[in-house]
Amino acid sequence: MASKQFDPASGTRDFLAGELRRRERVFAAARGVFERYGFEPLQTPAFERLETLTGKYGDEGDKLIFKILRRGEHEASGEADLALRYDLTVPLARVVAAYGSRLPSPYKRYAIGPVWRADRPGKGRFREFTQCDVDVVGSRSPLVEAEVVCAGADALDAMGVTAYTILINSRQALNGLMEVYDVPAELAPAALITLDKLDKLAPAQVVAELVEGRGLAQATASSLVEDLTAEDAVARMRKVLADHEAGRVGLAEVDRLLELAGPHIGQERIRFAPSLVRGLDYYTGAIWEVTAPGMPGSIASGGRYDHLIETLGGPDLPACGFSLGVERILGILMDGDEGAAVIDVAVTVMEEEHSTEATRLVGGLRRAGLTAEVYLGGSRKFAKQLKWAADRGARFAILSGPSERTDGVVTVRDMSSGEQERITVSDVFTHLMNRCAM
Amino acid sequence: MASKQFDPASGTRDFLAGELRRRERVFAAARGVFERYGFEPLQTPAFERLETLTGKYGDEGDKLIFKILRRGEHEASGEADLALRYDLTVPLARVVAAYGSRLPSPYKRYAIGPVWRADRPGKGRFREFTQCDVDVVGSRSPLVEAEVVCAGADALDAMGVTAYTILINSRQALNGLMEVYDVPAELAPAALITLDKLDKLAPAQVVAELVEGRGLAQATASSLVEDLTAEDAVARMRKVLADHEAGRVGLAEVDRLLELAGPHIGQERIRFAPSLVRGLDYYTGAIWEVTAPGMPGSIASGGRYDHLIETLGGPDLPACGFSLGVERILGILMDGDEGAAVIDVAVTVMEEEHSTEATRLVGGLRRAGLTAEVYLGGSRKFAKQLKWAADRGARFAILSGPSERTDGVVTVRDMSSGEQERITVSDVFTHLMNRCAM
Repeated sequence: MASKQFDPASGTRDFLAGELRRRERVFAAARGVFERYGFEPLQTPAFERLETLTGKYGDEGDKLIFKILRRGEHEASGEADLALRYDLTVPLARVVAAYGSRLPSPYKRYAIGPVWRADRPGKGRFREFTQCDVDVVGSRSPLVEAEVVCAGADALDAMGVTAYTILINSRQALNGLMEVYDVPAELAPAALITLDKLDKLAPAQVVAELVEGRGLAQATASSLVEDLTAEDAVARMRKVLADHEAGRVGLAEVDRLLELAGPHIGQERIRFAPSLVRGLDYYTGAIWEVTAPGMPGSIASGGRYDHLIETLGGPDLPACGFSLGVERILGILMDGDEGAAVIDVAVTVMEEEHSTEATRLVGGLRRAGLTAEVYLGGSRKFAKQLKWAADRGARFAILSGPSERTDGVVTVRDMSSGEQERITVSDVFTHLMNRCAM
Repeated sequence: MASKQFDPASGTRDFLAGELRRRERVFAAARGVFERYGFEPLQTPAFERLETLTGKYGDEGDKLIFKILRRGEHEASGEADLALRYDLTVPLARVVAAYGSRLPSPYKRYAIGPVWRADRPGKGRFREFTQCDVDVVGSRSPLVEAEVVCAGADALDAMGVTAYTILINSRQALNGLMEVYDVPAELAPAALITLDKLDKLAPAQVVAELVEGRGLAQATASSLVEDLTAEDAVARMRKVLADHEAGRVGLAEVDRLLELAGPHIGQERIRFAPSLVRGLDYYTGAIWEVTAPGMPGSIASGGRYDHLIETLGGPDLPACGFSLGVERILGILMDGDEGAAVIDVAVTVMEEEHSTEATRLVGGLRRAGLTAEVYLGGSRKFAKQLKWAADRGARFAILSGPSERTDGVVTVRDMSSGEQERITVSDVFTHLMNRCAM
């Protein structure tokens, strides 16, 4: 029966019950945490006007936007006027611009929803995937970073991610670092992108790339990499940065965040990581990334981005956010699959004339709050209906034939033990509510 | 600040917290009912391959499909290869075809999610809107109709729709009706579409349209409309249909459904409606529509469609479904808006140095399961922070200044009464848990 033609479109997925329930449980865990923090949910449309999205993600990003063809007489033009959202941040900027003072200030919002990117599909890379973001727009208080980091960490805990480390750095600290090591200002941005690879490449490779690819002096590249990879890298960095204006400001940002969020998160799970860069150049203050054992790269990341909302077309408001890589996180948690649903009671229908009674029974069970199903197939064979009850994961089955009806009872079968008991029809709801509550 | 340029795209909506929570609560109510019935959730992608959708909705429907432009080097072709889903039924047919025997049989699924149609936006008509469907694929048992109708009715109850009527008819009964009144077979489909207007137009108007527009004989049209609009229309129809083969089969379908579902739903809320037609010609058996006082048209509808899955590209399996018009239903329920969120505790920050303590306090409150927020603004004025706490709908505010810190206490303010109490820091979590539980 299965054939390529019935597969979902390339890079997209159908979620059947087991997988969907697992995903929803993980999202609900995050949602519960964000609500407890007073973040408000926001849901924006799947598509935006094309001009809202283009030019916001760089040339490479723009190519990955799914564009929607104009309709009616304009369809033949081959032009697009709408596009599927690429992330949850541009819609946030638009909402902040559109609703202004009708939003609380600061505006603490969370959003969990699909985004679409025309990336080449691959293992763990999809064209439709879910993002999960918390952001605070409109406050420069360092408490904001702490709120956002603690909310993200609590969400990871609630989702069931047991081991992770939050690495903290600051844009200012990185600027200071470049100045301390005499990296010319024009070479600094590219040099930082190379330094960010210290978690993947050998130190010598990074030095080589800094010299050959980025144009740094050999001595500069060597001492920079040596200091950043030393056993006591953090101490060395604290020392050199403290001597420098931008470095001091950056260190203070990092320390304030460690001081505010550390006690809540656990000091062993959050630390200063002087070589953490984060590729995106819109960050302006503290930045962070969450790593988990056995996962290359990060499972979540964020930082302060005080001018991005304006760049994206919104008002000039400071902002800070944390994005949890829920698709990757679901990958880590993969072992806990839900499997088939478990229902409380399966009601068999051994004779056509018994349908009305079966409907009444199953309706009563549902009213009593139980998950109950009635046999909808065509077979009147006992064995077949029992197999159906077992396949549905039923804890109990109700059987009723002529002898039961004569006596005004039904037979209740415990599907795990096979034990059967005859119960008066008027008692069966209470009987099963009690047994299912155990 | 607000300007057209920041509005969501035409026909789409941003859902801010209050409205979104209200929608989610209504959807969750339906979901809870469907789960209790043993329906399984299904989530398919937002877009499908274009050929999966085209040709499935008639010429008018095809024009309303949002098509996605090909990407990369193919973008310039102006061609589309993907399209946003138009409903939840075609994706269901594809899933049934794709997963075959890996799905339970019969496959009872529900889906609640957005669909997209390039309709002209208007009052209550959107280009992105949510559909809510329950369907059973793979069984011809009349218990299926009862399951689906009862699940839909229970969902309406759970959503809070207090008054509604389920009108039942059957395709076979309609076929019988046409034969009984000697409507030529080739005129019957169009005549039925006109008869469906009896709930909107005067009987004379319907007669005129049947004669002038549909080509029926004057005598035929008059007696048909007279019988269908008579005080005792149901009795007349039962009598004439009982004399006729297709009519008898149709009546039996209706009566079986009334017998199986009536006791559960309440006999006064479900009845035979001999002039109910339902526009869509894919229905093959029982059909139904739900009306609510004060709402023109229907708020939900469904029926048996035994060949649609095959027509849509799936295997030839019998099916039956119920679609709840959740956007219209949300309209009926509109009065119960959630308004602003209510949080349990607002923690003020009167001095910058007090931030660490405030973070510790708010973290402890959240660990205790309370919804708590810490002041993230820049003002250190008492009145301003108190206004913030009131705006957030906080039940309690925590205040702490030098005198409190000296005494190792915090001040807890009841935001509705204004009463303040000094509580030892170590007792504040238990104290507020108890007060918030009241």
